[in-house]
Amino acid sequence: MPAADPVRRGIATVCLSGTLEDKLDAAAAAGFDGVEIFENDLVVSPLSPDDIRRRCADLGLTIDLYQPFRDFEAVPPDVLASNLRRAERKFDLMQRLGADTVLVCSSVSPDAVDDDDLAAEQLHLLASRAAERGLRVAYEALAWGRFVNTYDHSWRIVRRADHPALGLCLDSFHVLSKGSDPAGIRVIPGSKVFFLQLADAPRLDMDVLQWSRHHRLFPGQGAFDLTGFVGHVLATGYDGPLSLEVFNDVFRQADPHRAAVDAMRSLLSLQEGLGLPGPPAAPELTGHAFTELAAGDCRGELADALTALGFARAGRHRSKPVELWQQGEARVVLNTADRGGRISALGLDSSDPEISVERAEKLLAPILPGDDSAVSAPDGTAVLFCRTGGEQADWLADFEPTGEAAGGAGLTGTDHVSLTQPFDHFDEAALFYRSALGLRPEPTTEFAAPFGLVRSRAVTDPAHRVRIELNVAALRRGDWAPGVPDPQHIAFTSDDAIASAKAMRAAGAPLLEIPANYYDDLDARLAPPPELLADLRAHSVLYDRDEHGEFLHFYTRVLGSRVFFEVVQRIGGYAGFGAANAPVRMAAHRRLRLARRD
Amino acid sequence: MPAADPVRRGIATVCLSGTLEDKLDAAAAAGFDGVEIFENDLVVSPLSPDDIRRRCADLGLTIDLYQPFRDFEAVPPDVLASNLRRAERKFDLMQRLGADTVLVCSSVSPDAVDDDDLAAEQLHLLASRAAERGLRVAYEALAWGRFVNTYDHSWRIVRRADHPALGLCLDSFHVLSKGSDPAGIRVIPGSKVFFLQLADAPRLDMDVLQWSRHHRLFPGQGAFDLTGFVGHVLATGYDGPLSLEVFNDVFRQADPHRAAVDAMRSLLSLQEGLGLPGPPAAPELTGHAFTELAAGDCRGELADALTALGFARAGRHRSKPVELWQQGEARVVLNTADRGGRISALGLDSSDPEISVERAEKLLAPILPGDDSAVSAPDGTAVLFCRTGGEQADWLADFEPTGEAAGGAGLTGTDHVSLTQPFDHFDEAALFYRSALGLRPEPTTEFAAPFGLVRSRAVTDPAHRVRIELNVAALRRGDWAPGVPDPQHIAFTSDDAIASAKAMRAAGAPLLEIPANYYDDLDARLAPPPELLADLRAHSVLYDRDEHGEFLHFYTRVLGSRVFFEVVQRIGGYAGFGAANAPVRMAAHRRLRLARRD
Repeated sequence: MPAADPVRRGIATVCLSGTLEDKLDAAAAAGFDGVEIFENDLVVSPLSPDDIRRRCADLGLTIDLYQPFRDFEAVPPDVLASNLRRAERKFDLMQRLGADTVLVCSSVSPDAVDDDDLAAEQLHLLASRAAERGLRVAYEALAWGRFVNTYDHSWRIVRRADHPALGLCLDSFHVLSKGSDPAGIRVIPGSKVFFLQLADAPRLDMDVLQWSRHHRLFPGQGAFDLTGFVGHVLATGYDGPLSLEVFNDVFRQADPHRAAVDAMRSLLSLQEGLGLPGPPAAPELTGHAFTELAAGDCRGELADALTALGFARAGRHRSKPVELWQQGEARVVLNTADRGGRISALGLDSSDPEISVERAEKLLAPILPGDDSAVSAPDGTAVLFCRTGGEQADWLADFEPTGEAAGGAGLTGTDHVSLTQPFDHFDEAALFYRSALGLRPEPTTEFAAPFGLVRSRAVTDPAHRVRIELNVAALRRGDWAPGVPDPQHIAFTSDDAIASAKAMRAAGAPLLEIPANYYDDLDARLAPPPELLADLRAHSVLYDRDEHGEFLHFYTRVLGSRVFFEVVQRIGGYAGFGAANAPVRMAAHRRLRLARRD
Repeated sequence: MPAADPVRRGIATVCLSGTLEDKLDAAAAAGFDGVEIFENDLVVSPLSPDDIRRRCADLGLTIDLYQPFRDFEAVPPDVLASNLRRAERKFDLMQRLGADTVLVCSSVSPDAVDDDDLAAEQLHLLASRAAERGLRVAYEALAWGRFVNTYDHSWRIVRRADHPALGLCLDSFHVLSKGSDPAGIRVIPGSKVFFLQLADAPRLDMDVLQWSRHHRLFPGQGAFDLTGFVGHVLATGYDGPLSLEVFNDVFRQADPHRAAVDAMRSLLSLQEGLGLPGPPAAPELTGHAFTELAAGDCRGELADALTALGFARAGRHRSKPVELWQQGEARVVLNTADRGGRISALGLDSSDPEISVERAEKLLAPILPGDDSAVSAPDGTAVLFCRTGGEQADWLADFEPTGEAAGGAGLTGTDHVSLTQPFDHFDEAALFYRSALGLRPEPTTEFAAPFGLVRSRAVTDPAHRVRIELNVAALRRGDWAPGVPDPQHIAFTSDDAIASAKAMRAAGAPLLEIPANYYDDLDARLAPPPELLADLRAHSVLYDRDEHGEFLHFYTRVLGSRVFFEVVQRIGGYAGFGAANAPVRMAAHRRLRLARRD
């Protein structure tokens, strides 16, 4: 990090999977400055507290918080005595660890009583004991605390207790999940905010404890306004770390090194939103220049399909086994040096490709070896920033024109690219494409497909010239998963989908047949004009409608093992992707797979 | 099914994964009499309604319901006209399908108004249209219906509409999730209950629509009283099918043939609860006779470990490569004809082994080829019903005594066997062991392990002489899953765990070392007497306590690839399995795996 960066970034070990050793290594490798050590991680570790202190020091990590201590305050005298004994044991441990702050959560204990004065008095006592050892206590209102469950209530108690070693821990989840107005945080003196924990979350209507324990996300991945929240906290003068505390069922079992990078990216992106020093602003992305397929093992099938879809092989790369196929502004690059029949690269037009690369790199995207105009997305797709046409360096100049002419079937450009994400990395992917590329996320949708639920989220530029759709199985699939594995597709635009379908079918394109039942249901549901319905039915074109416009689209069969093409026509302001029709496509693709296997 | 069975059993296609063809095949193979066809399954199918009718007839399935039709009633005239058009299209379809009943869900539409008279009038009109074609309408109150969301409200409207082709659909989820008293169902004439849909669910505090769409279970797998509910419905004189309608994220992606068998088992078990004809009552299970390990590839390691644990090789099977190891009433059978280092069979003492087998078979457990005293559990474990000692056929007679003497380390018997279930089949396993063996389930617990959440549920006999603990990852694990894959273990009982640990350690048993941090935390949390704590610490024995008693336990290392042993001492009425300590064990096993790999 540049020396100018004033922000210290931390992460709670509970955010990451593995043993304490795995977690510390991952946090350090991702560039965190400190960690919160979660008690359970320490308890199962063979490293002594002194060993952990040394390990952290070697890794360049401070231990910013030991957590949590629970159910301390507002209890009868005998329980207090037992709680103090427990606290003293933990203070022993913290001194060996070299951690000076302990998190004390507001009580959920049946032993506790609703008495702020007693809570303040007992927290004062705890703080005195801590202070004797040079330690301090950060008191946090859990959203499900029995009596204390809002930050302003915890602040009243801390103020009443009035001990220099007692302050607040503020946690964005506990504040924002309750719908509390975080602006009130501004009245708290920054010196009394001992710690700041950050977590985002999707808006879910469920028990807040379960929501917190299972569904937290890194900032920018959920629905909370973390920028606003942190802005209020920084306005108090708080100068401690921005520290992540995310309980998430998926992250708990994901590769901790990768999750730690995702976590760091979320903080860097948050800093940008706060106006703190960060990566350069994202240049405008103005369109899909091209999409590259690794076609070494299915070049013939793809070339035949593209030809029947009206594309021509417009160019040959001057130095690599790479072909450019084009129709209108729709471009597909077949790279026969790579295999796998997958989408290997997205070529995106940028108003400033050099800055786009610099920004992505600052947001932890590795530069592609051998190509300094490209970075690697976490899902393995290369992202190339380029200029199409114009006076400056044009990537098209790398291709020698063939003079071959496109048959043409009315395609005008690329509408979107759809990438299926690894199960553990859906939220990571959405954050990456949003932050590194400077796009904005659309709402997450979920639909029932024949073989399980599918979750989908698109990221786009404001003008919808670049659309990347990300899909994932809502649960990781098992042995019974007979759909197309990890399907990916490129959707081209047409101004007349039915005419395009007719022309492509005439040219022998491998288009997907849609069952009659679909059209009968479409008629019952949306009652399109009979002539349109007849055309849709005759040409296996699907249809959707929303309050802004209409959507006509059709698909090819799967080419190679996992890629297919789509043609879409957007009428009016239709903004979706025809998710209601996706199960029809999936069932049809599955049938063809079965047929091929027979 | 025997001719005496008066119950017709059905399943909604939405319960099962796959295309409509997959689902129908699976339902028929599991012995269902009928299906509810879910609209989306039909829409994506290339089979015409007439084809589907024929396919079902060939498979011996009736089509009991077409579902769902939504948002029909209590709307302005123009919307009504459009809704009637839509309904007529679906009636066309139903006539081709040969389905005579359509499900109409109570409206969630913003077009609807809160007017029971209008709802009744419009449903009367719909029923008239249906009746003209010989069809009928089953009206169902969704728990999240906009105005109509309780069964008694839907019944008031149906009564007011007063049309012979209009009746109710009752769905256990919609009734029980709302906390409605189902006893009121008894006032409804059975002739007006057109359809009965059954689903169980865990008690969750969340948005009821999300709860319903994602978390339903087959009867007996959740927390609802399905027996009571169905009892009320049958008391009305309802004589239609018992039909399952279960939306579940896991079942949506599980093998449909296996899920259909699970579904059928749930209905057979429900019938037994209702006192309807069914399998013979479960004989008493009186203990773990033995546990068999497939030891062909790790016999030496297991034999050495058992010897050090104080077991002796007490017998050799008279005809198979199988050894009996014994200490007190604890018995382990090493079968060197099988490989995999897994638990291959549970030998359970039954008061009537023949009836136990007959019952399990009636509950769809296949008899093991070549052994008519054993069935195969869905997870592949064989379950043998036997008698130990006594006058009747004793399985021990198959073994020739070796005369080898046990060193002895204080083990007295088998406390429990712990089996990790395949992710998709946790609820199936709990239902199987509960119903086929006549055990009872304990509450499901969940805990955070180093590599992800783990869910655990035990089934036991009332006297706790047989305990089978079932574990599963709360989410299917991916590439980053460095724990022991699918661990299984046998827990033996000791009256003095510390003495056993001491003796075993002296004999060189491969016991698991527990880190010092664990004991420091135990002292802080539970403050056991200092002498006890010192003993626990010295011998790597873990400790837990609940309101009924105390629990001391310790583990061996993993032997072969996935099996380990545990020794437990229960003091007082402690009923758990020390779940709080499981993460310590998992981290320790993980470290040893890493060390072995290095």
